[in-house]
Amino acid sequence: MRLRNKPWAKDFMAEHPDMLIVNPEDKKGLWAKEFGNDAPIHIEVGTGKGQFVIGMALANPSVNYIGIEHFDNVIVSALEKAIESEKPANLRLLRFNGENLESVFAEEEIERVYLNFSDPWPKSRHEKRRLTHARFLKKYEGILKPGGEIHFKTDNRSLFEYSLISLTNYGMKLLSVSLDLHANMPEDNVLTEYEEKFSSKGQPIYRLEAQYQAK
Amino acid sequence: MRLRNKPWAKDFMAEHPDMLIVNPEDKKGLWAKEFGNDAPIHIEVGTGKGQFVIGMALANPSVNYIGIEHFDNVIVSALEKAIESEKPANLRLLRFNGENLESVFAEEEIERVYLNFSDPWPKSRHEKRRLTHARFLKKYEGILKPGGEIHFKTDNRSLFEYSLISLTNYGMKLLSVSLDLHANMPEDNVLTEYEEKFSSKGQPIYRLEAQYQAK
Repeated sequence: MRLRNKPWAKDFMAEHPDMLIVNPEDKKGLWAKEFGNDAPIHIEVGTGKGQFVIGMALANPSVNYIGIEHFDNVIVSALEKAIESEKPANLRLLRFNGENLESVFAEEEIERVYLNFSDPWPKSRHEKRRLTHARFLKKYEGILKPGGEIHFKTDNRSLFEYSLISLTNYGMKLLSVSLDLHANMPEDNVLTEYEEKFSSKGQPIYRLEAQYQAK
Repeated sequence: MRLRNKPWAKDFMAEHPDMLIVNPEDKKGLWAKEFGNDAPIHIEVGTGKGQFVIGMALANPSVNYIGIEHFDNVIVSALEKAIESEKPANLRLLRFNGENLESVFAEEEIERVYLNFSDPWPKSRHEKRRLTHARFLKKYEGILKPGGEIHFKTDNRSLFEYSLISLTNYGMKLLSVSLDLHANMPEDNVLTEYEEKFSSKGQPIYRLEAQYQAK
């Protein structure tokens, strides 16, 4: 997405430390304490403007959600939305690079990873940057509880083809696959901004759920 | 497909025993002898009117092909096509029910199984009849060489979703996945009758290659 420069972003973020955690490394291993309960924690890597993670937090009060976004100028839009939604108690937004998941979460601290409309990085020399590359699957595994899951959706056909192969070759089990999510829209599907925009053009949305297997 | 009654089918089949093997059980373990060479043998289960298997036999003279079809009234169309193509030496057609693969092929006699536009059997009570059900994957494994492959294409979205899960849960490795084969048509793609008819309507054709893993 196009990144507009927002010179006010840093100050705005600093004004809402209850919702946007600027130094998330300090909370490693302490996320249950941060939420004040032992509910499962689901994270979204690449949360963008936050419509999905906020929608999920509102729809599922018994789950804690963390939306992770690298860019200041993007996550402030998510922060604005979270404030409009009266700052759900089961939601936090983190601004950091997904490369550093291990610095922010302890082993087995997380139950599920959501990846939505991740950057496809179509050139093969950028393959390692795709969020479904084995390199990232290993990072997620390092912070997930045994049997943890990845839920992934995208409109990018090549990325989905790649991801089916990458996840299953890594040894993950496919729990569900949809090659046209909106043809049989699940009742509990929360749309991302991107999904809302593109599904109306008739392009299929692909989705899968996959589970790590005991070693 | 609609089955027309063809009272002449039995006689016609009996006239071409060099191409259409009516009692294939007699050849079990002897297929290399039947072909007169040790080239790899690829089979198509549900060969229909034969356009795919005959096209493959003509395009790849160093591979032996066997098309298997249950119905007399369908396989005679394949036989007619094979005769028009001057009976390729690396092709045989077999009329028997795919349930009985073990009666016709010995262990490790086959290198690859093709499944093209197989009956989707959409009702869940018919799941066991789908040619990508674990029950069939076990049958194929019983006759394939180690590292043997399944190449599968279909226009049926639900069957393809099901098959991705079924094959990978069985422990097979995905070698390739295409969610719109004709968007990037491989040069060596041989079309089935059905594929020719439906691809022109803009429906995506799904395709995968999967490999059995050492136990």
